[in-house]
Amino acid sequence: MKQSMTLIPTLREVPADAEVKSHQLLLRAGFMRQNSSGIYSYLPLGRQVLQKIEAIVREEMDGAGAVELLMPALQQAELWQESGRWYTYGPELMRMKDRHQRDFALGATHEEVITSLVRDEVKSYKRLPLTLYQIQTKFRDEKRPRFGLLRGREFIMKDAYSFHANQESLDEVYNKLFTAYSNIFRRCGLNFRAVIADSGAMGGKDTHEFMVLSDIGEDTIAYSDTSDYAANIEMAPVTATYQKADEPYRELEKVHTENQKSIEEVSSYLKVSPESCIKSLLFRIDEKLVLVLVRGDHEVNDIKLKNLFNAGTVDLATPEETKAAMNCAVGSLGPIGSGDNIEIVADHAVRAVVNGVCGANQEDFHFVNVNSDRDFSHVKFEDLRFIQEGDPSPDGEGTIKFAMGIEVGHVFKLGTRYSEAMQATFLDENGRTQPMIMGCYGIGVSRTLAAVAEQFNDEKGLVWPANLAPFQLHIIPVNIKDEIQSSLASELYSSLKVSGYEVLFDDRQERPGVKFADSDLIGIPVRITVGKRAAEGIVEMKIRKTGEVLELHKDELPAVIEKFISNR
Amino acid sequence: MKQSMTLIPTLREVPADAEVKSHQLLLRAGFMRQNSSGIYSYLPLGRQVLQKIEAIVREEMDGAGAVELLMPALQQAELWQESGRWYTYGPELMRMKDRHQRDFALGATHEEVITSLVRDEVKSYKRLPLTLYQIQTKFRDEKRPRFGLLRGREFIMKDAYSFHANQESLDEVYNKLFTAYSNIFRRCGLNFRAVIADSGAMGGKDTHEFMVLSDIGEDTIAYSDTSDYAANIEMAPVTATYQKADEPYRELEKVHTENQKSIEEVSSYLKVSPESCIKSLLFRIDEKLVLVLVRGDHEVNDIKLKNLFNAGTVDLATPEETKAAMNCAVGSLGPIGSGDNIEIVADHAVRAVVNGVCGANQEDFHFVNVNSDRDFSHVKFEDLRFIQEGDPSPDGEGTIKFAMGIEVGHVFKLGTRYSEAMQATFLDENGRTQPMIMGCYGIGVSRTLAAVAEQFNDEKGLVWPANLAPFQLHIIPVNIKDEIQSSLASELYSSLKVSGYEVLFDDRQERPGVKFADSDLIGIPVRITVGKRAAEGIVEMKIRKTGEVLELHKDELPAVIEKFISNR
Repeated sequence: MKQSMTLIPTLREVPADAEVKSHQLLLRAGFMRQNSSGIYSYLPLGRQVLQKIEAIVREEMDGAGAVELLMPALQQAELWQESGRWYTYGPELMRMKDRHQRDFALGATHEEVITSLVRDEVKSYKRLPLTLYQIQTKFRDEKRPRFGLLRGREFIMKDAYSFHANQESLDEVYNKLFTAYSNIFRRCGLNFRAVIADSGAMGGKDTHEFMVLSDIGEDTIAYSDTSDYAANIEMAPVTATYQKADEPYRELEKVHTENQKSIEEVSSYLKVSPESCIKSLLFRIDEKLVLVLVRGDHEVNDIKLKNLFNAGTVDLATPEETKAAMNCAVGSLGPIGSGDNIEIVADHAVRAVVNGVCGANQEDFHFVNVNSDRDFSHVKFEDLRFIQEGDPSPDGEGTIKFAMGIEVGHVFKLGTRYSEAMQATFLDENGRTQPMIMGCYGIGVSRTLAAVAEQFNDEKGLVWPANLAPFQLHIIPVNIKDEIQSSLASELYSSLKVSGYEVLFDDRQERPGVKFADSDLIGIPVRITVGKRAAEGIVEMKIRKTGEVLELHKDELPAVIEKFISNR
Repeated sequence: MKQSMTLIPTLREVPADAEVKSHQLLLRAGFMRQNSSGIYSYLPLGRQVLQKIEAIVREEMDGAGAVELLMPALQQAELWQESGRWYTYGPELMRMKDRHQRDFALGATHEEVITSLVRDEVKSYKRLPLTLYQIQTKFRDEKRPRFGLLRGREFIMKDAYSFHANQESLDEVYNKLFTAYSNIFRRCGLNFRAVIADSGAMGGKDTHEFMVLSDIGEDTIAYSDTSDYAANIEMAPVTATYQKADEPYRELEKVHTENQKSIEEVSSYLKVSPESCIKSLLFRIDEKLVLVLVRGDHEVNDIKLKNLFNAGTVDLATPEETKAAMNCAVGSLGPIGSGDNIEIVADHAVRAVVNGVCGANQEDFHFVNVNSDRDFSHVKFEDLRFIQEGDPSPDGEGTIKFAMGIEVGHVFKLGTRYSEAMQATFLDENGRTQPMIMGCYGIGVSRTLAAVAEQFNDEKGLVWPANLAPFQLHIIPVNIKDEIQSSLASELYSSLKVSGYEVLFDDRQERPGVKFADSDLIGIPVRITVGKRAAEGIVEMKIRKTGEVLELHKDELPAVIEKFISNR
């Protein structure tokens, strides 16, 4: 591609509203432009990288036995009403009316469309399993679009849906697509983890998010420093065991702790460590009030509470509820003397606290020398806290560390959520009607582009991995008006294109400094500079990533390039 | 692809609401399904054909120097307000509000988006010309969606836009893209014509529509039976010359023609041919009333009137206007004694009428023995009528025939319509600010899929050309439960895939009749049937198009297939 024929509008300045590297660099290097908030045009360079990501996605999806189709963006409201999401999705689902005043949604996702399609066409177990995918534009009216392509309102997604006659078949396809996803992100060169995620209200047990590790990520990942284990922090079980201090139980005593409410205040006032304190929190779990105890240096993980009680909602009780139930304020709660009506659950760590401190259900008083086995009744011990850095990894290998992650993919065992709501049934081997069991699998294609840009850059600009780069080679004649340079550059451009390389040829009449700065910003892996030694047939080859520079005769060039590009 | 793993829901019955062959067959053969009126899902087979068409489009566009990008579907209203089309486009432009109540259009086309993009990024003649294209989903809320993909509300289009510093540059790119378009539709195997079209109010001189010839087309094309000439019938100039009959002028006479109004009535009552009658029609052209004369067997072409008077609107005068201006009814109008206030224009054919008939501007009376050079004053003779079958072709080669056409592509010299409205200017070589000159170029990608299906079918189903077929080979074991057949079929499936063919393998447990009927319906070019002679290694190869059947040993198969596929 001759640079004069395409549109690569580079910028010297960092755009004011671009907070993160990928957003800044994709704008500055002319890969994209914003149309309106959260809505972008992919300029030629951006389009090319997108297509390379799409090609990888297609290869891996096809390899996993998924079949491509293409569903519409305009989705009739009736489908969303059948699933119920017309009423629950909120303003992120963009809605409109057609000329006949019929309601439509702009596809934010395609569970409804695919379920209605498969419901209408597949009636027998003989046609299952079936895994269908598409690469398509999605619309979600984010409240606060940000970070460029990382959180936009119109974006490109690969979404896949699988339909099964039984759970084993779902498990099998889930595992295949899990592997395909790992391959896709590995081939994109990303530093990522497949993270155990919350399956929410969907009921499915298995769900993984594919997270690119990045400081700008919005989710915290707990991962093992030695194994593959990774989970959203809410999802990581705590397998730590706790050793009781080898000291004798002292006598339980109620002490005055005027105005000391928080763990910090109490522990400092009583001169004990937070680890010796027992934090008591009153939760409303569905309709029931439950007192939850964790060690003073730990935090209650409400997802674990929710799962323990198989509950719909878990919320902290309000001060009013607390007062009514316990006759004291939130900061004075404790398990001793809390009455028989209140169920108490405690985190395992509480059991190992010796001579600890807890609230006395009385304003300005705490118990000291608390020992759960001696002083508590009706307490169940469970895993209730958030995992922390330094905890043992739940898989038994290594120690937990935290990182932030950008979600680029998601695999999910949906179960029968949609097939039951929309009557997508089939006849099984015994002629019985069953709801299909479903899985769904998403990849943010445009978000992956941004995630790669976020991980592959340096102070000069983008640094594309060779297999995703918009071009593999960038030829720059230092002075295009110089007959010898221009003609050698053109000759190399033609011959390298014939050899199958994607070549960008900077044929613009610009100063060398501008061309080199643009080239660094764009980040094509190999630059070939044709300068003063063109008359001798000597050119300079520079590796964008390492900065390594070689002077080569044009006849040596093809072999060196081939070695470099195939080495990647 | 194993047929058991994909979704090809064939139908035996013709769907009730599908009027045309392509619509019926694409539904019956499982290439697509309707989601709602004018909105479709492309099932796996349909998606594959689309991708092949898209690949051809990309190759030819890239070859013509166009560069791909991707613009959004969600377009802010402000852009459409700048161009003015927010107010003029009508209900076909789908509109919506986002969560902040800001107005958006769903892209029906992208002149506004691309013009704003190029306006912001290109400032100098040095960056021109620039030709950008995308393959993208478009939305148009058609009043009456019909014929399946031929007139839908959500469809796939390739749209391109070019920007130029001068007219010569536009002409050059226009010609290149004209050639690219011809290549694209030729490679799709379509019987098409590049048709001279009406540039409407856009002011551009050159515009061509690429029309696939088809009885279900909505536009009438006048084409030469011997040359490449083709035009929308409104656009074809009439170059016919007319010979005056060699008979003496008789005396003008007013005759009583009670209740005879139409040309048919008058000519039959007076026992003259319609060719001897002169039809007089009063038009309101902008604000002016003009009497227009054509021969009785001809029709007035109002586009020609519009162009002749360089007018904004051309309408037949109402009976009231006619009465007021001419003091008679519409059916009695004529050029003799019509008064000096009314301008008269006549088609060239009128000049050659000898002793003709025309209205007398008096109810129930006509003039006979009318001769224009003797009896008319103030008449201008122009080309004013529609071309007819049998007329000489305007390019001087052959005779005009009519055909109906489906528009699949359009190339258009836009000029400065958008660049002026949206201030897309550049600095020319002399430092002067100029509006960019633009061209736009569209291809209906999903419509092309339907047009191919419309042209390539027979009574059994679709008959794909090899380069667009979803698969090239269809392997069918007659009885999949037969170990020998099944194993030979699998062996051929694997080896032919390795050889690079796209193979569909019917591994379903269905009766042979079902499998053969499905296969004919789907229309893959070559079918390989593995049946009773599998034990000997003998299979049957059938060419879908010709019905030709060959029995071959499996070892001969690759060579015969290669010959057939490469022969296409």
